[in-house]
Amino acid sequence: MSEEQKPLVRHHKGDFHWDGVDVLRYKQDGAAPFKDVTRQVLFDSSEPPAQLRYFEGAPGGWTTLERHDHTHAVMVIRGKGQCLVGKEAFDIGTHDLVSVPPMTWHQFRAAPGEALGFLCLVASERDRPQLPGAGEAEDITKPLDVLGKL
Amino acid sequence: MSEEQKPLVRHHKGDFHWDGVDVLRYKQDGAAPFKDVTRQVLFDSSEPPAQLRYFEGAPGGWTTLERHDHTHAVMVIRGKGQCLVGKEAFDIGTHDLVSVPPMTWHQFRAAPGEALGFLCLVASERDRPQLPGAGEAEDITKPLDVLGKL
Repeated sequence: MSEEQKPLVRHHKGDFHWDGVDVLRYKQDGAAPFKDVTRQVLFDSSEPPAQLRYFEGAPGGWTTLERHDHTHAVMVIRGKGQCLVGKEAFDIGTHDLVSVPPMTWHQFRAAPGEALGFLCLVASERDRPQLPGAGEAEDITKPLDVLGKL
Repeated sequence: MSEEQKPLVRHHKGDFHWDGVDVLRYKQDGAAPFKDVTRQVLFDSSEPPAQLRYFEGAPGGWTTLERHDHTHAVMVIRGKGQCLVGKEAFDIGTHDLVSVPPMTWHQFRAAPGEALGFLCLVASERDRPQLPGAGEAEDITKPLDVLGKL
């Protein structure tokens, strides 16, 4: 739906669903590994050329471990979990802010017993994510192991 | 603080304040009327060239009645209130989405007994707001009067 056709106000229907906002597959293709994540596009703006999306990992879910040139500006708005950003891992909870710089490995993981929902601001035109090579993921995600379970 | 210098994670300290995020004056100059509103810049991004700000009106507070060519993409994340967007007024609450199209009169009002806090996505470069002429505001805000108090 273009910005022009969108209703001026779209009410939150509860449980992080919105009037006129479709719940989408997290990834367009099935090649990248992830677990129990959904995607919703809340705003698709031409000026600024940006999208504001809402991602939600079900309890125990996790996003694809990836990196790319485009940046992510993230605000958690539901639940809690952990994230990897480069060489650091963090416990994160509702209203925390996360910045993912260019070409920085990142992953978001919902807590075992709680969903993790977050807004993610990106440029409309952006490069495709890169995935770790065979056997690289374990090393990249080591900071999450060091941090330990929530 | 530029994106590059920003910590990767900035935790929510509670009460809609964040590590390393300053609470700013709502307006740079004192010419435009408003009541009890603060501003915080959560993300200042170069690509996309956009800012994500958090505005909060204290109970009974209201933002300036204005219009401009740039758009606003808004998500309420605290409390409830009302907004005017063009010729319509709406009750809004937490997690509702509001789109303000170009050159559309708009105003956000916190409920009398509750703060209204919202995220607002804008282009980094944007035109200055226009204010209503003398005696025009009453007519422009009539939809809010028709909607009635929360």
